[in-house]
Amino acid sequence: MSDRTEFRFAGSGGQGLILAGIVLADAAAIYENKNAVQTQSYGPEARGGSSKSEVIISDSPIEYPKATMVDYMVALTQESFTKYIKDVKDNGIVIADKELVADFSNAKGKLYVIDMVKSAREELGKLLGLNIIALGVLVELSGIVSHESIEQALMKRVPKGFEDYNKKAIEIGFRLAKEIKNNK
Amino acid sequence: MSDRTEFRFAGSGGQGLILAGIVLADAAAIYENKNAVQTQSYGPEARGGSSKSEVIISDSPIEYPKATMVDYMVALTQESFTKYIKDVKDNGIVIADKELVADFSNAKGKLYVIDMVKSAREELGKLLGLNIIALGVLVELSGIVSHESIEQALMKRVPKGFEDYNKKAIEIGFRLAKEIKNNK
Repeated sequence: MSDRTEFRFAGSGGQGLILAGIVLADAAAIYENKNAVQTQSYGPEARGGSSKSEVIISDSPIEYPKATMVDYMVALTQESFTKYIKDVKDNGIVIADKELVADFSNAKGKLYVIDMVKSAREELGKLLGLNIIALGVLVELSGIVSHESIEQALMKRVPKGFEDYNKKAIEIGFRLAKEIKNNK
Repeated sequence: MSDRTEFRFAGSGGQGLILAGIVLADAAAIYENKNAVQTQSYGPEARGGSSKSEVIISDSPIEYPKATMVDYMVALTQESFTKYIKDVKDNGIVIADKELVADFSNAKGKLYVIDMVKSAREELGKLLGLNIIALGVLVELSGIVSHESIEQALMKRVPKGFEDYNKKAIEIGFRLAKEIKNNK
């Protein structure tokens, strides 16, 4: 079995998907001594407004840095869900936001529909931080890095003055993922 | 001849290499309708403090997103220069900062030693923006995207309130590259 794990953040520009990917890669590489590659690809398919950011994490050196068999995908728009789900493994995990994605007709893998937007609105007061909530969900569901590692990486990448806000956001993600794990 | 062009920003964490890469990829993909991949890799070789960010730009879809034959590299630390120069093509272009890199014993390609730090210090008043000066140098030397495209992409990615500062930084980069082109 390969120890390579592929993550894909799918959504639209401006949702902070790249930052989420960078923080995950930092956490794995800097704080847990793994190999990591963070990639953002733009192609003809991305011109419609969909955007994705990918992270591959492995204990071994990563030869091919493009995600091809996605283990974990989070989708923060309908369009990106529909466009980018095709590479998810049959036994992969897909997290979609309950308000932002409604059509699951081409779903693959194991689907978790989670109310991240609602939690952002109610607990953070705005949608800024949705990317970090999603990151928290992915980390909790995958167990790829510890809470401590992801929080340390996060604190290094967020703007000064936004540390507490982002800490709150990632903890919302941990909690939402725990709740859904307990319900299944 | 392939239309694939590979860029590598090499330096240390905290120098803003990822942002420089993202802005270049945005400029090519969003404003000039090309294909682009922006990648950040961490491996055992990166643990010493060196860091790199890569961008591949092509008119065709990009199958292999890792830089292997680097056309343009900019180095903002000695360690990263020494570590990452090996993949530069024989006829590639290497830009090194005059204050930060001194040992060129394993140089490859065509080397430009440019006083970017000095210009940042004298014209911006601090080193913040060195990444954007370097980006301006790369854009001017490569001609990969227009000044307009890179400036539009830059304005979308910089924090509010820092637009003028970054515009000044990238224009310093354009000018430094023009000066060195005229001198050769």
